[in-house]
Parts: sequence; C-alpha cells; structure tokens
Amino acid sequence: MSKCAWVTLATNDSYSLGALVVAHSLRKVSTKHQLAVLITPGVTESMIEKLQDVFDVVQLVDVLDSKDSANLAVLKRPELGVTFTKLHCWNLIQFEKCVFLDADVLVLQNCDELFEREELSAAPDVGWPDCFNSGVFVFTPSVDTYGKMIQFAETSGSFDGGDQGLLNQYFSNWSTDGSKRLPFLYNTASTATYSYLPAFKKFNQEIKILHFIGETKPWSQHFDSSSKQVQTPPGYNHLQCFLQMWWDLFCDKVHPSLTQEMSGIAGAL
Amino acid sequence: MSKCAWVTLATNDSYSLGALVVAHSLRKVSTKHQLAVLITPGVTESMIEKLQDVFDVVQLVDVLDSKDSANLAVLKRPELGVTFTKLHCWNLIQFEKCVFLDADVLVLQNCDELFEREELSAAPDVGWPDCFNSGVFVFTPSVDTYGKMIQFAETSGSFDGGDQGLLNQYFSNWSTDGSKRLPFLYNTASTATYSYLPAFKKFNQEIKILHFIGETKPWSQHFDSSSKQVQTPPGYNHLQCFLQMWWDLFCDKVHPSLTQEMSGIAGAL
Ligand SMILES: O=c1ccn([C@@H]2O[C@H](COP(=O)(O)OP(=O)(O)O)[C@@H](O)[C@H]2O)c(=O)[nH]1
Ligand SMILES: O=c1ccn([C@@H]2O[C@H](COP(=O)(O)OP(=O)(O)O)[C@@H](O)[C@H]2O)c(=O)[nH]1
Ligand SMILES: [Mn+2]
Ligand SMILES: [Mn+2]
Repeated sequence: MSKCAWVTLATNDSYSLGALVVAHSLRKVSTKHQLAVLITPGVTESMIEKLQDVFDVVQLVDVLDSKDSANLAVLKRPELGVTFTKLHCWNLIQFEKCVFLDADVLVLQNCDELFEREELSAAPDVGWPDCFNSGVFVFTPSVDTYGKMIQFAETSGSFDGGDQGLLNQYFSNWSTDGSKRLPFLYNTASTATYSYLPAFKKFNQEIKILHFIGETKPWSQHFDSSSKQVQTPPGYNHLQCFLQMWWDLFCDKVHPSLTQEMSGIAGAL
Repeated sequence: MSKCAWVTLATNDSYSLGALVVAHSLRKVSTKHQLAVLITPGVTESMIEKLQDVFDVVQLVDVLDSKDSANLAVLKRPELGVTFTKLHCWNLIQFEKCVFLDADVLVLQNCDELFEREELSAAPDVGWPDCFNSGVFVFTPSVDTYGKMIQFAETSGSFDGGDQGLLNQYFSNWSTDGSKRLPFLYNTASTATYSYLPAFKKFNQEIKILHFIGETKPWSQHFDSSSKQVQTPPGYNHLQCFLQMWWDLFCDKVHPSLTQEMSGIAGAL
C-alpha cells in the first residue's frame, strides 16, 4: 500500500460533496496513492458514511479558525477563517508525503508525479502570482512542522486572514526557489477561462487539476435533473464543459448513494 | 553615456501621452540609462516634438500588425494587432541591453538593476501565470533575432493575436527557466488591486513598476482640472493613489508644454 496520500478537507456537508467528487476524480485517473479527508464536527453522520465509502482515511479534527475578521473582510470572504483547519493535514504522519487538494477541485489527469516534489511545492495564484495558491500543494507530514506553524500563526497572523496568507508567510522563499513552483496546469484557476481566454483555449487540453476558485462552487450551480445539464452563470460559458464534468461525475458516482436530504444540498437536484 | 536603454512604443497621440509619463517617471527615479520611444506615422508632428524633449531617441518605424482578428476577438481587444510593432525594438542595435516598457506603466522606484538580467526576462501574467506579461521585458537588440521573430510570426502566428502570445511562443522556455522570471513587483497588474486585495495591501509599498492593463488607461479617466483630482471608476478605489500619481506627473511635467489640441486627448483636461 502506498505511503503517500491525497488529502482534502470538508467542514460541512456541502464541501463534503466537493470532497466526494475530488475522490472519485482521483480514482477515475487511477491514482496509486491513498485518499484522506479531514472533517470537523460540522459534517453529519450520514455524510461521514459516504466519505468512508471512497476515502481510505476519514480523520476528525477540531476547527481551527483565524478569527481575523478584518483581513477576511478585505478578502470579501468571511467564511475563510475556517480554512486554518487545513493545517491539521501536517498531522497525518502515517504518510511520508502528501498532496493537499481543496474540495473545490477536479482532477482531470493522473498527477501521481507530484509526490516526487518537495515541500512546499505549489502553483502561482492568479491574484498575485508571487504568492502560491493554497488549493493544491505538496507537503511532508510532521508534528514538528505543525507545531511551528501554529506558533507562527499566533505570533504573525495571516495577511489575508485565511490559510493562503499564512502558508505564504511561513513558506516565504517559495517565489524565489524555482524548484518549488508547480506549473499552473496543476492548479488552473477557473477564472483563467475569462481573464486570458486565448491562453485558456491554447492550454485547456493540458489542464491536470481545475480549481473552481471564488464564491461560485460547482455544487451551488443550477442543475437540471431531467436533461442532466448544468446551467452556467452568465459570462462563464468557457467553464461550461468543466462544470458539466463535475456534475457528470457527481451524478454517476455520488448522487445514487445519497439520501434525499443530503442530495438536496447540491444545486436543484 | 549608457549603452542601455528603456524602450517604449506609441502608435498614436494618446499612447504618446502615456509614453511621456513613462519617460518622466524614469527621470524622476534617476535612471542612469537612455530613453527611447518607437513611433509610427500615426503620431502627429507636434507630439513628436514633445517626445524629443524627454526621450534620447525617437525612432520612426512602420506599423506591424498581426491582422489576426479571430484571436483578437477572443481577447476582446481588436486594437492589439498593432502591438506586433513592438518587435521593432530588437532593431535598436545601438544599445547593448534594453528593457521594454508599455506606454501604460508608471515606474515608481529605480529599477536599473533590470539591465543585469538576460533576454528574455519578464514577470508572470495574472491571466495565465505560466505566460509572461509583455508589458515589461529585458531584451538584447539584434537584427538576427528580429528576423527570426518575424519569420516565426509568419509561420506560427500568435495564440492571442497580439505581441504577448507571439513572444511567449518564441521564448517558450520562460516558464521553466526560473532565472528569467522577474518578481511581480516589476510589472504589477493594476487589476491585482481588487483580485487579491490583501496581497496588494501587503506589498503595495514595494511595487516598482505599476502596469495599467486592460481597457481603462490613466489618460482616459475623468480628471477635474480645478481640484486636480482624478475620478476613479467604481470598484477601482485601491487604484486611486496610483492614478493620481500618474496625473500628478502628467500635470507637473507633461501638460504645461502641450498645445490645447494635444491636451484635449487626455481625460477632461
Ligand atoms: O466553509 C468552508 C470553507 C472552506 N473549506 C475547505 O477549505 C478549502 C478552501 O476554501 P475555498 O475552496 O472555498 O476557497 P477558494 O479556493 O475559493 O479561495 C475548501 O476547498 C474546503 O476544502 C471547508 O471545508 N469549509
Ligand atoms: O493602439 C495602440 C495599442 C498599443 N500600443 C502600444 O502597445 C502597448 C500594449 O498595449 P496595451 O498596453 O493597451 O495592452 P495591455 O497592457 O492593456 O494588454 C501599449 O502600452 C503601447 O505601448 C500603441 O502604441 N497603440
Ligand atoms: Mn478552493
Ligand atoms: Mn499595457
């Protein structure tokens, strides 16, 4: 059995739907590594059972929260303080090497080669490309590192109030150490579909991991259950095919096993 | 006299106003290098005289145009075919090393250290950060390189119809050669003010060159000539201070010497 794992996080049932799709997208591309999900008490019992069906490890952790409302307000995403909970991934010391994936990504091609990379490898953020985006990163579990990061969080805080600001401050040499920079194809921001459309058209066949950043998550889009088509928000046409892929996987692998209550969380299903 | 030069481009009188501000911003930070501007027949005689007052070299070149309306339509910027004219900068062989600057940038700190970099050094593009933005780049003038690029343009075209697509295809190893990656502070996209505001707040004192990318150019903003204040478009509040800096420089150094006709091009002045 592999000593490496893909790790994601869900603090509630809606992000758990994302986590389930992440897991199935990894199985679909035949990863040879294990799958782990961190959950908090906000995830319901019945959802935990569904997670256990596809993840090798379902790890309950406490909520860590930056409670940094000032910086989070600047980011316009008050809910992201809870992403500090991500830091618990460093405690998964049963694994030698891990790759963290946000619950709002879709793995499109096998990326097992990422486990050959060193901590902390990540791809540039489209908002400020000398920062990395913390939706996909390679790390080495270590209780020691975890402790140092918590201490760092307490003394220095996070410049954006979320995990991304904190991780960028802690791993501050990322932008100058070229070996830690993952190609953007490993964490392609969904907004790239309209911010530089010609590049998106040129490279979209090569995308390995698509990341639905921002407030518009796949599971909150309107989905027509008779036609099986997702409705894309205005201006997001070029995202249509990726949103549809997310929903196809959801309908095929996740939805059949959900209770009515659980599936009610997603779109209009 | 320095064998290095800053080079910009203006194909008409409005971009010439930008070029004039670029030149004055470079003088203000006491660059020790020369200033050159490429112009095309679209620039009027009286504007050429103003350019000659501050640039060491004013070089007339022919318009090169990608005429790639399909790709430019995807980019929603039909006017950018003309940016192929930028390629002429490689013909400035009286200089040993040059840095190209778009006419819509503002140099905030001395950046003479850029001339120690190799061709082709540039900063990541916020739309697709594995491409470089072609608004600021270090290059080595060479008639040979120029010829190869023109030939390449004819056979391969440009994936975005503009100079940025072409340059990225020609210098295709940029994203894997870390030594060619300039920090984002040398070409900070003005859109970073809202796309990742906390990062912008953290780093804005360190910005060296600000680039007003997109359709909203400083000279097309509304300016109140009695209060001397620029009016920022809705949602661009965090850009206010940079737009004001552009206008302060314009009022101080450029406007007094313009004819009434010429200054009419800029804002409501
Ligand atoms: O209420 C929340 C918010 C976030 N997350 C986790 O934290 C990640 C980062 O948040 P998000 O993806 O919403 O941020 P973005 O990528 O849009 O910046 C998510 O993918 C989830 O794994 C979560 O479990 N519950
Ligand atoms: O009609 C034009 C369009 C562009 N340019 C030159 O080409 C550069 C690139 O165009 P622009 O800055 O508008 O593109 P953006 O940075 O917004 O992508 C400009 O800064 C000018 O130097 C010009 O002289 N005339
Ligand atoms: Mn995310
Ligand atoms: Mn520009």
